[in-house]
Amino acid sequence: MSVLRIGHINLRVLDMDEAVNHYEKVLGMDVTHRDDEGNVYLKGWDEWDKYSVILSQAEKAGMNHIAYKVNADTDLDAYKQSIQDYGIEVEELPAGSLPAVGRMLKFNLPSGHEMRLYAEKEFVGTAVGSVNPDPWPDGLHGCGVHWLDHALLMCELNPETGVNKVAESTNFMIDVLGFYLVEQVMVGPDGDIQAATWLSCSNTPHDIAFVGGPVMGLHHCAFFLDSWDDVLKAADVMSKNRVKIDVTPQRHGITRGYTIYFFDPSGNRNETFGGLGYLAQPDRPVTTWTEDELGTGIFYHTRELVESFTTVYT
Amino acid sequence: MSVLRIGHINLRVLDMDEAVNHYEKVLGMDVTHRDDEGNVYLKGWDEWDKYSVILSQAEKAGMNHIAYKVNADTDLDAYKQSIQDYGIEVEELPAGSLPAVGRMLKFNLPSGHEMRLYAEKEFVGTAVGSVNPDPWPDGLHGCGVHWLDHALLMCELNPETGVNKVAESTNFMIDVLGFYLVEQVMVGPDGDIQAATWLSCSNTPHDIAFVGGPVMGLHHCAFFLDSWDDVLKAADVMSKNRVKIDVTPQRHGITRGYTIYFFDPSGNRNETFGGLGYLAQPDRPVTTWTEDELGTGIFYHTRELVESFTTVYT
Amino acid sequence: MSVLRIGHINLRVLDMDEAVNHYEKVLGMDVTHRDDEGNVYLKGWDEWDKYSVILSQAEKAGMNHIAYKVNADTDLDAYKQSIQDYGIEVEELPAGSLPAVGRMLKFNLPSGHEMRLYAEKEFVGTAVGSVNPDPWPDGLHGCGVHWLDHALLMCELNPETGVNKVAESTNFMIDVLGFYLVEQVMVGPDGDIQAATWLSCSNTPHDIAFVGGPVMGLHHCAFFLDSWDDVLKAADVMSKNRVKIDVTPQRHGITRGYTIYFFDPSGNRNETFGGLGYLAQPDRPVTTWTEDELGTGIFYHTRELVESFTTVYT
Amino acid sequence: MSVLRIGHINLRVLDMDEAVNHYEKVLGMDVTHRDDEGNVYLKGWDEWDKYSVILSQAEKAGMNHIAYKVNADTDLDAYKQSIQDYGIEVEELPAGSLPAVGRMLKFNLPSGHEMRLYAEKEFVGTAVGSVNPDPWPDGLHGCGVHWLDHALLMCELNPETGVNKVAESTNFMIDVLGFYLVEQVMVGPDGDIQAATWLSCSNTPHDIAFVGGPVMGLHHCAFFLDSWDDVLKAADVMSKNRVKIDVTPQRHGITRGYTIYFFDPSGNRNETFGGLGYLAQPDRPVTTWTEDELGTGIFYHTRELVESFTTVYT
Repeated sequence: MSVLRIGHINLRVLDMDEAVNHYEKVLGMDVTHRDDEGNVYLKGWDEWDKYSVILSQAEKAGMNHIAYKVNADTDLDAYKQSIQDYGIEVEELPAGSLPAVGRMLKFNLPSGHEMRLYAEKEFVGTAVGSVNPDPWPDGLHGCGVHWLDHALLMCELNPETGVNKVAESTNFMIDVLGFYLVEQVMVGPDGDIQAATWLSCSNTPHDIAFVGGPVMGLHHCAFFLDSWDDVLKAADVMSKNRVKIDVTPQRHGITRGYTIYFFDPSGNRNETFGGLGYLAQPDRPVTTWTEDELGTGIFYHTRELVESFTTVYT
Repeated sequence: MSVLRIGHINLRVLDMDEAVNHYEKVLGMDVTHRDDEGNVYLKGWDEWDKYSVILSQAEKAGMNHIAYKVNADTDLDAYKQSIQDYGIEVEELPAGSLPAVGRMLKFNLPSGHEMRLYAEKEFVGTAVGSVNPDPWPDGLHGCGVHWLDHALLMCELNPETGVNKVAESTNFMIDVLGFYLVEQVMVGPDGDIQAATWLSCSNTPHDIAFVGGPVMGLHHCAFFLDSWDDVLKAADVMSKNRVKIDVTPQRHGITRGYTIYFFDPSGNRNETFGGLGYLAQPDRPVTTWTEDELGTGIFYHTRELVESFTTVYT
Repeated sequence: MSVLRIGHINLRVLDMDEAVNHYEKVLGMDVTHRDDEGNVYLKGWDEWDKYSVILSQAEKAGMNHIAYKVNADTDLDAYKQSIQDYGIEVEELPAGSLPAVGRMLKFNLPSGHEMRLYAEKEFVGTAVGSVNPDPWPDGLHGCGVHWLDHALLMCELNPETGVNKVAESTNFMIDVLGFYLVEQVMVGPDGDIQAATWLSCSNTPHDIAFVGGPVMGLHHCAFFLDSWDDVLKAADVMSKNRVKIDVTPQRHGITRGYTIYFFDPSGNRNETFGGLGYLAQPDRPVTTWTEDELGTGIFYHTRELVESFTTVYT
Repeated sequence: MSVLRIGHINLRVLDMDEAVNHYEKVLGMDVTHRDDEGNVYLKGWDEWDKYSVILSQAEKAGMNHIAYKVNADTDLDAYKQSIQDYGIEVEELPAGSLPAVGRMLKFNLPSGHEMRLYAEKEFVGTAVGSVNPDPWPDGLHGCGVHWLDHALLMCELNPETGVNKVAESTNFMIDVLGFYLVEQVMVGPDGDIQAATWLSCSNTPHDIAFVGGPVMGLHHCAFFLDSWDDVLKAADVMSKNRVKIDVTPQRHGITRGYTIYFFDPSGNRNETFGGLGYLAQPDRPVTTWTEDELGTGIFYHTRELVESFTTVYT
């Protein structure tokens, strides 16, 4: 049994029209479905399943749930058992609970974030198709993001009380869901507090990541771009559309990726993440960042954290 | 049990000094070992195991064997059984048969190419290390290739006699070694002859590929570069070093990658392969190229095959 | 008095609809005028004068004339005198001879190509305007070429008869029009035959170039792109539109630029030329290419001329 | 008579060893001369005159003088006259006043900055030479800057007292030295205060620039890089060398260029400026930035000025 990748994220937004405009016009995704409750579903041009983002009207921004796709329907039974064995309650939602999605497992990570697993989502194909495809489609718009790539979840971390939901959630992802640790930040006087982790279920440097903070939340969800040049173009598109940029194009030390952090109109932090970085592998040694070089790990060029990184999230 | 990636390739070269100069100075690898028989072992800066290329003096260029690394030593027993069950003879070589490598399974693909599986190779670390690493090392030289990425093996294909070692080797990789099909070329009047395949055991578009031709051989082995800009720099480096370029920088339709085909001094075709292309996944639909668009698949810009593609290999 | 830059080129095309489609959809220019005789006028998004390409229906492809813009109307009088003093006949065409253009000087280069000089062309502005402009406009299409950059004119060169229209035209451009020599190819047993030249009236490596061949003609006209990444995108766009590419993305040794050579539907060779190359200056030493490295100069990666370079032109 | 380009800048540094290390190891220039007073002279690999940077030990950082190269020695006499006619005192320094430089005119801009003009500097050639040159040299190090590109001088501007040294210096450069205005920032209630200007004597968007502030000084001197990718590499090099970065890779709205602002060890602001931006021309309309979009003009992605831009300089 195995988890394939991040399947979708359900974001809460304050103004649906503005939100749809942002994910369509700025990020360059396409609306593929709207349901009766007013939720809007979008996908990137390079994704083949029906959607990877669900926007839900709400009073407060943030993430409702994050979902991962597993390899086969039978994996769901096995995961259900192993999650329960780990001591975490699991609810099984019938097919159709979400449009175009098969049955789902619903549970909370040790950090409290709601996660779902599913094996089936309606196949609609990429924008270039599967027979003699062009490398990119006509009609690319906005940043032209390829796909939802990963999310960074903010987890409660309090060295004084010993609460470390980063470490707890990391262990769960590894022990129960079969992810492996790719990079980590170790802090504290003895360097033994796991303050942030990047985990993979594939060969990308992160399919999910956790970072410690005062209270749980969504730090950001990231969308994939090919290259540093695409990141430049994305920043230009954001400027044209008056998007609030948090961190302009810069390299992450961690993952080696090219980043822009910015906010959707509701205040949810987005990232366009460019470049492969490297090919993660289970036998590649875990990369460790020490507390004194934490800033370098996050923002390789400035070598220091901006305050917003740890204080502004949803 | 699972195969992690291509582990190394053993190439035959006609002049060892020239060959070492090529893989060191042009490709930018580093010699990590020389054995008593005069074989030379090299690795890319971003690889953590001791070597990925073995150069062996010979009268005739080509490939002696290609090796893949599996996840765990116990996988070797399971693979040994399943390969034998498939009807292919397997020899087990003791640890140390190759320097710095544990026990190996040795067998021939249906196409006749010698393949080996191993689980252990001496860890030496990447050039940037695993604690607060820079994204690239000081002292990069030549093309600065990251790692050995994949190989394309030429397999006997004769529609008239019905011999199709492409399809046979593809089936073996899928059924026995757990690879999955990512792209394929289908030819013939009914479009039912599998003339070339690209297979993955990870999330890259190809960890191995097969293409049909008159007789078996090595079409090329490929080394990874990050970007289209790195491919330009690589072509410049080749020109400075008077390397014989077969195909200048161009996009592949298949895999979307950025390629240069060129030859080592012995005539073995090399590739620098740039860009992620896309994230391959088992549930991503197989991309199929039809015979009339085969040229476009191989060389997206010229849209036609060069004669050397199918006639020149080792 | 001084020449500012190439102003426009008048190309003969065999099928106007196909030609307009090519320059609009593939190159990404915009039609800004059509006259009563059916000529079509286009400009790039980053040009501020009304047009830089005139397409004229004809039975045979090629160039009718090439025009350069001078700094001031009074320069025309001075140039008229100096051209006549050089022994070349000049005709003065009244304003309006070409739509939106002031009076013009019309004459033939020593090579026989018709050249025109003018000081005034209707100002229409770039697509981004001049007040708080974005770096690039919304609605970019095709290759999104910035501007007409230069042309390479094929001139009669016959070492046996001593005819060298390359050298004659080069001298004229320098002595009369104030251009300066930037690069040259010297061939022949004594290396004293100027077989090709690149000349600047600005700080770009070439505002016009001449190359020797059997008979006079247009080798290519070139359109500017920013970068190697834009050249990749341009090649992708050409493939999507089934444009016949002559030379895929490659670096020129001469000028250091990034090139694609391709043909419009009538067979006129176009180039997308990317990168600044370097900043040409009158006191920068002339770069000389010797006959044995001519191929390297033209195509830095392959280091050899393709036959079409000297035999196919219009 | 005409000014060709910026010839060199004489910077005051607090620690010569640290400074040389910075300009050599980080920027990638080469020391070409040291004089008896301990001044150090450096050039970029793509420059052909002997030096473009002079480092002088001092108690306080900043710029001693900025020098421009004119086309011919006779131009110096003409400029001497026209500068004096403008009411500015000129001193003529004999050849050899600076090593390897011919006679110089020395005067102060209306802003107070010392400027020099010269026609002769010892030719040493670029690192790739002028016969069959490679596009870039072996042995590139650090950021590998091509050449000194421009400087931005801080000029006294006080709308309340009506002092505007930006406008005065701009007029001088245009009226006396033959530069032309490319871009400008207009502020004040009526938008009629010229608060910053970018001027060209060539076809680059700026050979010199002026910006208003409380007191005169050097805002930054800039070094040329080809591309956005080279800017990324430069930022990586800076991080490796612990260089203090002021503004990470970002696009300027003004000039469209790709920038990094950073400091040499003495606190002088440097810039690596990448990309051509566009081809400036005397007949290209002047680009005007209004006060409300000033931030966008300077930093296109963040759309707002950082405080250090106007307060930190030398």
